[in-house]
Amino acid sequence: MYVELLGRLVKKNSSKIMLVILDGLGGLPFYPGGGTELEEAKAPEIDKLAKKSAIGLHDPIATGITPGSGPAHLGIFGYDPLKWDIGRGVLAALGIGFDLRKDDLAARGNFATMDEAGNITDRRAGRISTETNEELCGLLDGMKLGDVEVIAKTVKEHRAAIIFRGGEFSEKLTDSDPQVTGEPPRPVAAEEPGAKASADLANAFLEEANKRLKDRHPANTILLRGFATLPDIPSFESRFKLKACAIATYPMYKGLARLVGMDVLDAGDSLETQTGILKQVWGDYDFFFFHYKYTDSRGEDGDFGGKVKAIEDFDKYLPELTGLSPDVIVLTGDHSTPAALKSHSWHPVPLLLWSRHVIPDLVEFNERNCSRGSLGRMKALEVMPLAMANALRLEKYGA
Amino acid sequence: MYVELLGRLVKKNSSKIMLVILDGLGGLPFYPGGGTELEEAKAPEIDKLAKKSAIGLHDPIATGITPGSGPAHLGIFGYDPLKWDIGRGVLAALGIGFDLRKDDLAARGNFATMDEAGNITDRRAGRISTETNEELCGLLDGMKLGDVEVIAKTVKEHRAAIIFRGGEFSEKLTDSDPQVTGEPPRPVAAEEPGAKASADLANAFLEEANKRLKDRHPANTILLRGFATLPDIPSFESRFKLKACAIATYPMYKGLARLVGMDVLDAGDSLETQTGILKQVWGDYDFFFFHYKYTDSRGEDGDFGGKVKAIEDFDKYLPELTGLSPDVIVLTGDHSTPAALKSHSWHPVPLLLWSRHVIPDLVEFNERNCSRGSLGRMKALEVMPLAMANALRLEKYGA
Repeated sequence: MYVELLGRLVKKNSSKIMLVILDGLGGLPFYPGGGTELEEAKAPEIDKLAKKSAIGLHDPIATGITPGSGPAHLGIFGYDPLKWDIGRGVLAALGIGFDLRKDDLAARGNFATMDEAGNITDRRAGRISTETNEELCGLLDGMKLGDVEVIAKTVKEHRAAIIFRGGEFSEKLTDSDPQVTGEPPRPVAAEEPGAKASADLANAFLEEANKRLKDRHPANTILLRGFATLPDIPSFESRFKLKACAIATYPMYKGLARLVGMDVLDAGDSLETQTGILKQVWGDYDFFFFHYKYTDSRGEDGDFGGKVKAIEDFDKYLPELTGLSPDVIVLTGDHSTPAALKSHSWHPVPLLLWSRHVIPDLVEFNERNCSRGSLGRMKALEVMPLAMANALRLEKYGA
Repeated sequence: MYVELLGRLVKKNSSKIMLVILDGLGGLPFYPGGGTELEEAKAPEIDKLAKKSAIGLHDPIATGITPGSGPAHLGIFGYDPLKWDIGRGVLAALGIGFDLRKDDLAARGNFATMDEAGNITDRRAGRISTETNEELCGLLDGMKLGDVEVIAKTVKEHRAAIIFRGGEFSEKLTDSDPQVTGEPPRPVAAEEPGAKASADLANAFLEEANKRLKDRHPANTILLRGFATLPDIPSFESRFKLKACAIATYPMYKGLARLVGMDVLDAGDSLETQTGILKQVWGDYDFFFFHYKYTDSRGEDGDFGGKVKAIEDFDKYLPELTGLSPDVIVLTGDHSTPAALKSHSWHPVPLLLWSRHVIPDLVEFNERNCSRGSLGRMKALEVMPLAMANALRLEKYGA
């Protein structure tokens, strides 16, 4: 309803919107009585911006739900993450920067250990090294199954992306991964009649893969799950009439931006190179998705001090962004990654909005202030409409 | 959507969740300029817990809606109270601790006064005493209508529960209660073709009841409304993978817990006996629903000081609960019952959540602080997902 309404109201103008995602920004106190990562960080530039901004919190999905990177970003991009449930196979391919095509079928693969009776004894093959994984993918990559070509790409350790190309595929397939040890892999089955040929193909791949891997104990088999094709998702430009670019350093976020049709720029691998490219292309786009990874990485490591420092490192570069004078700045995370939990979490995410049309909350940017901020608590899905409104890019509803 | 999503994400672990309902907890100032019951209560243990907790408000149903006990509890238990609209007949039976069976048809009965012309002159028969009601139920209880047995149970004053047992019934029946005086009772009618036999049965009961009651003026008839059968509600354990028990002293709350399949323990009739049984069974369950009635009772009485004292009485026992070291504590009300209104109300309800994974709000527990708390304002339906997240019992959504 909301999305359809927006579609009717979107208009163009010359404003520029900057969306800065500090991945996994939200945090928790590391010790009883302590502050969160944002509270402990010395981030004078963020706080200077915050004091001119309206702040609040967003829930990536819904109360209590911990999101993966895919749904978390889609929500902020303005796509209902419950409607656009991007399959694991597609995310695995996007995550390694693989240029997945419209007709490809992708699955997440796990190299695994099978005993002589055919039962799975280790679903992760003892977490083989990434180097071993690359050797194994070399054994599978390029396999021909009739007209279909199989592309096998290493993700990390025991994880791979398996892509079927050159046919018409259905993603309505069950996993071969039994999810438990002591049982054999399950044959891939069609979840609807039209998926029968794709199931046969997947099973033919698994049979041939077992032959090629049989001497490679502990990684003597591969399990597939999350079969998926690229969703037929409307482009960001068609939704918001914004010419958009992504300035990210990690494949997953580039992939998610590409999924919605943003121009993915070669942004190097540091804030230095990212801000450099941002300045170069400033005249060419209306919308800039600027992604910073290390807040999430240090959170996942359980490295509280490292996450504090990652925030402080970003802080030094913020003037490079604000100095370009965007009309709207959204600074937030895609989800929370508290170092105390060493993982993504369900906690709502600090959200900062600056434009000439906000009532400043006049306080520093952290979880507790955001929980009392004037933006209140919204769904991630509401962030883009709010940014669009502040860019004066939405018509009035009704007369 | 949200409920279905949760169903996919729920997982088991060894954590323990404690849900403490202080019935009708939310209040209002009794005099202009005064505090609410929670603000006036000296509750040092609650405040000590609150300062380590995140707080906020929940709306049992939606803004402005005053809930009964049934929907208020169902919402907090994680069942959409607008979807699971439990019929009045079922609630009447649950409220007196009657062990309603799956195939029973239950109705709420009012003893009433009928004049010689057959019109209702008093829908409550002058609020006869509970003792008189018991005599009258004795006249009706055990009535046989073919193979069907009628069970008549006193609720209070003019109110009774009428249960039909031993047939296949439909609840799609209209009320016989005309809701106004000066008109005759209405024949019970089928709301769908399959309900015809049940309507005939209800009318046969009413005809026979009128014969048996005819000399018992002012209670010379009975009106039926809210015909209902037990809903086919999924169990709490199937929804949340939690082995759950209810430690309550009042029949209604035991009945609501039984409705969703919780083990209802014999918890005596005081906080002393309730905390005693809680300690005894601490090792046996994952989820503990602890219900305290007197905050609501004193609110319904319009007894502001009594409700303040009920909060203070509970406060003394709180260390018995926290001393068991649950992983998650939710302390809240099912709804508000301000003494100033002498009734349930629509006001959002103070909500406290403690776990190792919250950002403490560092303030005392009352309505005003809760309205600025970091949990924000949520629907009651979101309380269980949040508790589950804090118990680390929900998988991540998406990759």
